[in-house]
Amino acid sequence: MTDLSQPNTVPALLDALQWRYATKKMDPAKAVPQDKVERILEAARLAPTSSGLQPYEIVVVTSKAVREQIQPIAWNQAQITEGSHLLVFAAWDNYTPERINHMFDLTNAQRGGTNEGWEAYRQKLLAGYPPRPAEENFQHAARQAYIGLGAALIAAAFEEVDSTPMEGFDPKALDEILKLRERGLRSVAILPLGYREDGKDWLQNLKKVRRPREQFITEV
Amino acid sequence: MTDLSQPNTVPALLDALQWRYATKKMDPAKAVPQDKVERILEAARLAPTSSGLQPYEIVVVTSKAVREQIQPIAWNQAQITEGSHLLVFAAWDNYTPERINHMFDLTNAQRGGTNEGWEAYRQKLLAGYPPRPAEENFQHAARQAYIGLGAALIAAAFEEVDSTPMEGFDPKALDEILKLRERGLRSVAILPLGYREDGKDWLQNLKKVRRPREQFITEV
Repeated sequence: MTDLSQPNTVPALLDALQWRYATKKMDPAKAVPQDKVERILEAARLAPTSSGLQPYEIVVVTSKAVREQIQPIAWNQAQITEGSHLLVFAAWDNYTPERINHMFDLTNAQRGGTNEGWEAYRQKLLAGYPPRPAEENFQHAARQAYIGLGAALIAAAFEEVDSTPMEGFDPKALDEILKLRERGLRSVAILPLGYREDGKDWLQNLKKVRRPREQFITEV
Repeated sequence: MTDLSQPNTVPALLDALQWRYATKKMDPAKAVPQDKVERILEAARLAPTSSGLQPYEIVVVTSKAVREQIQPIAWNQAQITEGSHLLVFAAWDNYTPERINHMFDLTNAQRGGTNEGWEAYRQKLLAGYPPRPAEENFQHAARQAYIGLGAALIAAAFEEVDSTPMEGFDPKALDEILKLRERGLRSVAILPLGYREDGKDWLQNLKKVRRPREQFITEV
């Protein structure tokens, strides 16, 4: 494993966060290599989620025809077709016993055994989640998908791949295009991947603006 | 700026995600140095959010007395007091015109000017968000906080600092302890920072389990 204690690793993370921005104009002539896409997806897959349930999936849309279908239901944002890949983050529409059990069974299989505390935790989730309204569970699942979204866009920056997190789309229409509801999924965010078209993006050279530390952090 | 194209930077991100885990037992004798905490907070501050509104704040609780107050309303999870810092992610309870205008005004001030498209976007948000139910806006803000949560826990891993994302707490009680509602904030997640107590954490050496790629990713 890489020596994480190398003094330059963390500035690299902050540099990557400074480098990235919500790219508005991508170069349609440049495709993101598949090995980079794979590492971006792997970062999302490894990201933690509540109780480890990973209550979302990612649909990778490379089909130009499908991205052309999506663009008009997403404010015609150009990156959807100018990028080479579109990641669709789709949260579970509900927590079901099947989904919860699948994750606990998978964990038992991979860790080779179980224990009382873990099984008690399974029962706690089975008693807690499925009886709640589906909408409440979906909202909870959606939050977890945003952890993965954060991991993916950081991973993209490390790959020097541009990405633009977007909520500006009609989720019902996107769910229909990708037939997500049939799979118990609801789209919550999309992330085009591509390369900024140097000199053609009005946002590229504008200062990144964040609230200063004193308006964002308080200490107790 | 660091050369992000160095071939080892991305494996380092995946290594960091593999290294981290939801640490269950932290060593109360080890405190996280403040410079590491600052870089973790900076990663969250730099993380993107919808329309750049950054609709959440982070409260850093170092006071042992306050963390001892929080622990019982958080299932008595030991990391809350065994760690040295507790990050509380608190989302805006609503989108108000003041909050939206503050961010647009700050952006204009920092970029030195404005333009028609940007001001039209401000009006669009002012017309769209404040009239919606506060709960809907809060849920939206909470999702953004989870992007920052993801950035913070990745930054912690790069610092070789352990962190345990937690939702297992009574948000109303936590809001009262930290007087968050008076500030228009609602707690959504907490993240103790500290150091795993080697050999004393039952989870430390168990395999990290994630759904395999084929159960998490589909391609179109």
